[in-house]
Amino acid sequence: MSIKPNTPKGTRDFSSKVLSKRNYLKDIITRAFESFAFEALETPSFERLTTLTGKYGDEGDRLIFKILNSGEKLKKADVKSLEINDLKKFSFSLSEKALRYDLTVPLARFVAGNQNNLIFPYRRYQIQNVWRADRPQHGRFQEFYQCDADIVGNRSLLQEVEMISLFDRVFNDVKLKGVTVKINHRKIIEGIVNLTENKNNLVDYTVAIDKLEKIGIEGVEKELISKGFSQSGIEKIKNIIKLEGSPEIILNELEEVLKDSNEGQKGINELRYIFSKLNCFKFKSINIKIDLTLARGLNYYTGMIVEAMGPKNVKMGSIGGGGRYDELTNSFGLKNMSGIGISFGFDRLYLIMEELDLFPININLNTEVLFVNIGDKSVDIALNNIDKLRSKGIISEIFPTNIKLSKQLNYANKKKIPFVVIIGDEEMKNRKVTLKSMENGKQTQIPLNQLVNKLYNL
Amino acid sequence: MSIKPNTPKGTRDFSSKVLSKRNYLKDIITRAFESFAFEALETPSFERLTTLTGKYGDEGDRLIFKILNSGEKLKKADVKSLEINDLKKFSFSLSEKALRYDLTVPLARFVAGNQNNLIFPYRRYQIQNVWRADRPQHGRFQEFYQCDADIVGNRSLLQEVEMISLFDRVFNDVKLKGVTVKINHRKIIEGIVNLTENKNNLVDYTVAIDKLEKIGIEGVEKELISKGFSQSGIEKIKNIIKLEGSPEIILNELEEVLKDSNEGQKGINELRYIFSKLNCFKFKSINIKIDLTLARGLNYYTGMIVEAMGPKNVKMGSIGGGGRYDELTNSFGLKNMSGIGISFGFDRLYLIMEELDLFPININLNTEVLFVNIGDKSVDIALNNIDKLRSKGIISEIFPTNIKLSKQLNYANKKKIPFVVIIGDEEMKNRKVTLKSMENGKQTQIPLNQLVNKLYNL
Repeated sequence: MSIKPNTPKGTRDFSSKVLSKRNYLKDIITRAFESFAFEALETPSFERLTTLTGKYGDEGDRLIFKILNSGEKLKKADVKSLEINDLKKFSFSLSEKALRYDLTVPLARFVAGNQNNLIFPYRRYQIQNVWRADRPQHGRFQEFYQCDADIVGNRSLLQEVEMISLFDRVFNDVKLKGVTVKINHRKIIEGIVNLTENKNNLVDYTVAIDKLEKIGIEGVEKELISKGFSQSGIEKIKNIIKLEGSPEIILNELEEVLKDSNEGQKGINELRYIFSKLNCFKFKSINIKIDLTLARGLNYYTGMIVEAMGPKNVKMGSIGGGGRYDELTNSFGLKNMSGIGISFGFDRLYLIMEELDLFPININLNTEVLFVNIGDKSVDIALNNIDKLRSKGIISEIFPTNIKLSKQLNYANKKKIPFVVIIGDEEMKNRKVTLKSMENGKQTQIPLNQLVNKLYNL
Repeated sequence: MSIKPNTPKGTRDFSSKVLSKRNYLKDIITRAFESFAFEALETPSFERLTTLTGKYGDEGDRLIFKILNSGEKLKKADVKSLEINDLKKFSFSLSEKALRYDLTVPLARFVAGNQNNLIFPYRRYQIQNVWRADRPQHGRFQEFYQCDADIVGNRSLLQEVEMISLFDRVFNDVKLKGVTVKINHRKIIEGIVNLTENKNNLVDYTVAIDKLEKIGIEGVEKELISKGFSQSGIEKIKNIIKLEGSPEIILNELEEVLKDSNEGQKGINELRYIFSKLNCFKFKSINIKIDLTLARGLNYYTGMIVEAMGPKNVKMGSIGGGGRYDELTNSFGLKNMSGIGISFGFDRLYLIMEELDLFPININLNTEVLFVNIGDKSVDIALNNIDKLRSKGIISEIFPTNIKLSKQLNYANKKKIPFVVIIGDEEMKNRKVTLKSMENGKQTQIPLNQLVNKLYNL
């Protein structure tokens, strides 16, 4: 019985054509990260299970791919928890390692483990796959790239400014216009929630408001009420977060509304400083605005949060985001390591670039020269020359078998190979070759010893 | 309690310095593959378990990392097989996916699944991680790169010739001299085994002789006897495989010894053709010889087999290998797909290059310019100019906080940043900046509007 040649659901093969575009995008992001003085880091595909669990919330824990223990260790399977249906405990008795779920926890683990060797502030970028056991659906995969840049070990707000400028750099380099960068601050959110009687429900609030686009304001209200928010509290919040206008207008209004909140004032002052510094730049792709409904799902943020939204004419939503965090390395025993990080949504950005036709043509690598095969002596001459072409980076191949010329030319056409080299008896006699353009059919004879240069300069 | 910030055994973090060298090597291999007209392919990190099992022998099956099923599927755990200690069956009831173990089976799966869209012969390269649950030890990791090039769908021996030339290209490009490429042929091995009474023990023989370097000829003899080979049969084999000399001498002798073996003659003729074509090249790094003890562990080879050995002065053994196979896609329902593939041992090659000092200096990316931070106005000017530098690919950063200048210069020294830009009050008045070389301490004042060009041309 033969095995179905399928990939697992939610995963993809990438063929050459797709890879050339993915690599184009990856190179642009990499060059931007590097010129911003971020150092590369790569961490293992799997971490110890204890490193990952408890970092991403219950939902996240469920979506971590665990690696099954092998050999004798399997005997430790905790069958009792299976019997009482405690599948979580059962799975922990079967696994000690798990696939990378994001790039932030591995960074925290790396920084804590190398704190004595790193020079702080440590600026690192990382572009690697992460894996999530999400239900596969259109545009959502179980294996996908994350592209992160973080600065760890310093609280200066200049780094917030740099990160926003990095958004502009990348989106401009891929020729994407009309990106909106939404900014908010966790301490402002805290100040707003503190206006209600639900001072301790900050997480409930951020979780609810984070779903605004998905479930609408009514849905958010419902969820808040279910978490114990009063109607009057909700009205207060709604009146504030609907504020619109220039950063200055919003911050001035907030200053008044949150005048009794130390946290709120701190957030306002930070955003004021950040916006004053953003004026030093001439951004080409991004528009920046304060959006008080922005919350970011992850709980580890403590300062400015940011999200980049694709242009309005493409329905894609967030294509990047990030923010400042203060306690990421705490669980690895390293306190007081403030950091800030942003991440680019590689697959979404790719889809937008496809939709808007932003990939240059001709980035696909393709055979440039085919030596046709018309017998042994002809092949010897081809072999003798092909490695010179290849050394010069000219993508070359020899047709492997001596079949009818028309079939070989058909192969060249199917593969869209622009030039074919023919070395027939007559050519050999005169130490020449025939160079045939497959685009216009034109044939020219050139001396054999000029072939490499001729092709190199085409 | 804090969690130990360790990676799992057998895995590695790669910091920027190591990555720059790894990427240097990876780029050389990639460029060689591409100029040889191989197309890139990337396959998912995990495959369906049924795709991988049964392809790598019992030992291989044991070393495949399985991914634990999640959620309700865990209830299907076959506790009975655990009770009777059938751990293999137990593990199969817990897992449906497994991490990529090599790049060859995913290629076979891809070719079978896309047979109607691919143009044959299909030339593909693939450089991706594979994972093996091997006991970690010095130089052996659970996660490591494989670098494979394969041509599928054609039996022409010109492809054997190309693959050997590809070895020379890569080793020459990394400036490694003195590589020996050992060649043998599975049909010659078959012919030799057929001289004994153990015609059906071909696999036993290749498994045993493959260990020659590890266990010596006595160890091989012992294993063969345990598999039922007679002493006289073993003597026959030993007399043949000790043949040495030029390919011509060995092939002539073999022709005589294997005159009654059709298979043997086929292998001899193929090697004759291959060596005649190899004469068309001027190899710069590799020496090629026939080694009749070469067997290659994997059972799927059917034709020429090849192994590249590092220079004698470094003890590293095989740094590449491959061969022709005929039935790789059979298990996926696609018959008669002959192919040939070679693979480079990335980590071993890396270690040799380290040992022989073959990595160029200055391939490590590093910050080139640091703007020191001496107050708000100075920072504004820095921000205003830094994105121009970064757009030109000049790696730049601003010191994030306004601390003592000596501390900022100390940071530049620790990070080995060659240039520091100082914008003090006096500089600002004259619209100038001070450019300080950290190597020789020299300071020069230049007009602000010339900073970008000046640094770009340094």
